[in-house]
Amino acid sequence: MARKAPQAYLDLKEASVEIQTFNSILSLLHWDQETFMPQGAIVPRSEQIALLSGYIHELKTSRKYKSLIEKLASISTGRIKAKGLSAREKAAVREWTNEIFRLQKLSPKFVKQFSQLTSEASQIWQSAKKESNFKLFAPFLKRILDMTREKTSLYGYEEHPYDALLGCYEPCMTSAKLQKIFTPLKKELIRLLDQIRGSKQIDDRFLHGSFDAKKQIALGESLLSALPIDPAYSRLDLSAHPFSIAMHPHDSRITTRILPKGFMSNLFSVLHEAGHSMYEMGLPTEQWGTPLAEAVSLSIHESQSRWWETLIGRSSAYWRHFYPLVQKTFPGKLGKVPLDRFYRAINKVSPGFIRVEADEVTYCLHVILRFEIESALISGDLQVYDLPEAWRSKMKELLGITPKTDREGCLQDVHWSLGDFGYFPTYALGNLFAAQFFSAFSKEHRDWEERVSKGDLAFVRDWLKVQIHSHGKQYNSEELVKRITGKPLSADAYCRYLKAKYSEIYTP
Amino acid sequence: MARKAPQAYLDLKEASVEIQTFNSILSLLHWDQETFMPQGAIVPRSEQIALLSGYIHELKTSRKYKSLIEKLASISTGRIKAKGLSAREKAAVREWTNEIFRLQKLSPKFVKQFSQLTSEASQIWQSAKKESNFKLFAPFLKRILDMTREKTSLYGYEEHPYDALLGCYEPCMTSAKLQKIFTPLKKELIRLLDQIRGSKQIDDRFLHGSFDAKKQIALGESLLSALPIDPAYSRLDLSAHPFSIAMHPHDSRITTRILPKGFMSNLFSVLHEAGHSMYEMGLPTEQWGTPLAEAVSLSIHESQSRWWETLIGRSSAYWRHFYPLVQKTFPGKLGKVPLDRFYRAINKVSPGFIRVEADEVTYCLHVILRFEIESALISGDLQVYDLPEAWRSKMKELLGITPKTDREGCLQDVHWSLGDFGYFPTYALGNLFAAQFFSAFSKEHRDWEERVSKGDLAFVRDWLKVQIHSHGKQYNSEELVKRITGKPLSADAYCRYLKAKYSEIYTP
Repeated sequence: MARKAPQAYLDLKEASVEIQTFNSILSLLHWDQETFMPQGAIVPRSEQIALLSGYIHELKTSRKYKSLIEKLASISTGRIKAKGLSAREKAAVREWTNEIFRLQKLSPKFVKQFSQLTSEASQIWQSAKKESNFKLFAPFLKRILDMTREKTSLYGYEEHPYDALLGCYEPCMTSAKLQKIFTPLKKELIRLLDQIRGSKQIDDRFLHGSFDAKKQIALGESLLSALPIDPAYSRLDLSAHPFSIAMHPHDSRITTRILPKGFMSNLFSVLHEAGHSMYEMGLPTEQWGTPLAEAVSLSIHESQSRWWETLIGRSSAYWRHFYPLVQKTFPGKLGKVPLDRFYRAINKVSPGFIRVEADEVTYCLHVILRFEIESALISGDLQVYDLPEAWRSKMKELLGITPKTDREGCLQDVHWSLGDFGYFPTYALGNLFAAQFFSAFSKEHRDWEERVSKGDLAFVRDWLKVQIHSHGKQYNSEELVKRITGKPLSADAYCRYLKAKYSEIYTP
Repeated sequence: MARKAPQAYLDLKEASVEIQTFNSILSLLHWDQETFMPQGAIVPRSEQIALLSGYIHELKTSRKYKSLIEKLASISTGRIKAKGLSAREKAAVREWTNEIFRLQKLSPKFVKQFSQLTSEASQIWQSAKKESNFKLFAPFLKRILDMTREKTSLYGYEEHPYDALLGCYEPCMTSAKLQKIFTPLKKELIRLLDQIRGSKQIDDRFLHGSFDAKKQIALGESLLSALPIDPAYSRLDLSAHPFSIAMHPHDSRITTRILPKGFMSNLFSVLHEAGHSMYEMGLPTEQWGTPLAEAVSLSIHESQSRWWETLIGRSSAYWRHFYPLVQKTFPGKLGKVPLDRFYRAINKVSPGFIRVEADEVTYCLHVILRFEIESALISGDLQVYDLPEAWRSKMKELLGITPKTDREGCLQDVHWSLGDFGYFPTYALGNLFAAQFFSAFSKEHRDWEERVSKGDLAFVRDWLKVQIHSHGKQYNSEELVKRITGKPLSADAYCRYLKAKYSEIYTP
């Protein structure tokens, strides 16, 4: 017989499950909004979302909920008071306590004001981006930055105010640690990019013809159904921007989009979002509603999506198995293109202005640019009105190109208009975590390429499930990467991976 | 300037809007479950629904909500206390008060027990129906009847316990009134059916070939888009059973189903559900969240769906315009079938065992059968174990046929397993209301057939919107039918309509 957890723990778990159930309903409202909702329903939908979010916030900050936590741990110090908790239960209590500790730092008034400001600002940002008019957005960005700086004081930090923001998305990270990881990464990426510039460029024009949308959809569905994902618990739809949303390990949904030109975008989106989805589906169902069935952090989540999109989905092993299907789908366009040419084309490196379209080599440079800029905005070293120029000069420095418009420059991402400062680094960290995990995986499965090239993908997911998914938030990202790889996170594995891969693709 | 409602009214309105917003979220959970939800997600979905329903019930029965009502009216007597309310506001207060008065009659314990019983019973009913094994279901039906009888005492009634149940779905109706309406209706329908039996039967075999599903879907979409429905506020999907669900006048969704044989089923479902949908979309948006933006009753709702499905959707005027499209869609099957033959075929009268497949003449007989049986079950004049036999003998009496199995007999409908006694009559009442409304409509629009035969349907919806939709619950069904037709509800208009239509279709 399994031992029974202490009653106070079970009581808190019950309250937490209730809150998460309401959260999962909120997720359905968001999912529906992006997929099937009639477009005219946006006003009532916003009201549904505002009401339910508000109620969830009320539940989380209620006296009743706090008193349930206080029976197990001190919210102010984090010290665990309850006796007889297992290691996993202690980890769950730590996470519950951390969350409420952070929530308490911001007054309901501050939260409401910030949410009103960013709601307005993100509307304005849309127009500003459309018109490529930074001046329209600048006053809002200034106000968001003022409130964000206030937020950093409310949260508190030891060294850099930016640390308080990073902590919202990747609790183990600080500015100083990031600098230590990003500095060699930046250097190596610029070096690699230089080397690639010196090589013969790849011709990938055959990827950018006009591809039938229905066939594209069917192809994406085929790649998805070849992944170890139970269709009884998942679905794939179309939306303006691909995303993944999980209401429960048994209800995890993803979306993709079809570009008339460039059919690989859909396929990489499917693999990327399926990576997020497999993480959510791999969380332990019996712990659902507790931190033990939640993702570690945004970085670790991103490591799972990039794992499937890049480490598997841009590998030659994967396409040895799946490229014939692609050829069969588009025989006129690809029937005569050999696998090797296809593989090189989908891995073409070419500095561009847009982060979400970036290749593996330049992607992290886009992120580092944002990190350097937003950290200077927060510290006050950079003023809002100097942002466009700072962006242009950093693009030149890191990628060697200069955007002509702010739409292709500092207005391209929605994040800042939503007040999401400190978010961008998790995109790069996801790649680094993935590569470092992958080095451990490939040591354990030395025949991974052979197996993947036969279409066997279940053992890959099983490894991730055992190593990462099944733990939920039991370990933080620092503990997790040490457990799996024996080392703290660094850019080493990622740089080794890129170097090996791209010096083969781009022979001097 | 519009006058401002009293503050106590505005406070109650705000609380009511909040409850309705949660209700609309609940509707999305149901809609998603029947359309796109991965099938394996049923357990977490049930938990979402149970939690949210429970919370809505809590809000409605909260002291806070009651005290808001008590400021305007006495819950126990219904007497309005507040000064300065407009007629519409008084009507809203009357409805708010009625609802809470009824809600209070059942204890939370009773509600929970009843919901657990019916949840189990509806599962058992599914198996019983599948196996056509009434004995499996009988003990549950007995327990449901016991609790339902208890419910009638809790609600209270003047003459017949069945009145308390009718009141849940059609507040203006009593057993005695129903008898007065159904007795002549039954007589006339049996007479008409006899007359039809004496005529030459219609050959409708050409409707029951094998029709391409995609073309069927496209055809349903075409009929829908020809209705005065704004696509920005609506959508059409597929589900196992057609239904309509509205979250808001700006988010009203319907579903249909495709039968491989018999393509008219889909088209009639689209028109039927669109009728429900247009009612919801015609409710006054600015009153949303109050009874002034709610349907009068289930009967009036059904009058709107049957209006579009039968009075319009089975008229020769409608098909004069739309039949060419049907022929164009299925030229091989229908290209040579003239309009008149098609019109007679879709109106073929033929007694069958299944209510949902019944034609216009026999439909109400199916309902009267259920009314007579359930009212005898409630009064105790009929025992559960005698139900199958009672069903068979009534089928013989009313429709002249005897089902061979209980699956085609007393096990066919889900309603009783859900404890929905008193619901069935609203299906027949819907037809009677529709016909009586239609007689007023056709007097006002003597050229309606000419206009409809040109595809003009907006003026029909406009009439319904002005006469019915825009009032919400301001008038109850008795007041409404009197306002519109000058007379109380009777079976006269419906009988006149059927007689005129079917004596032309079935010439002796």
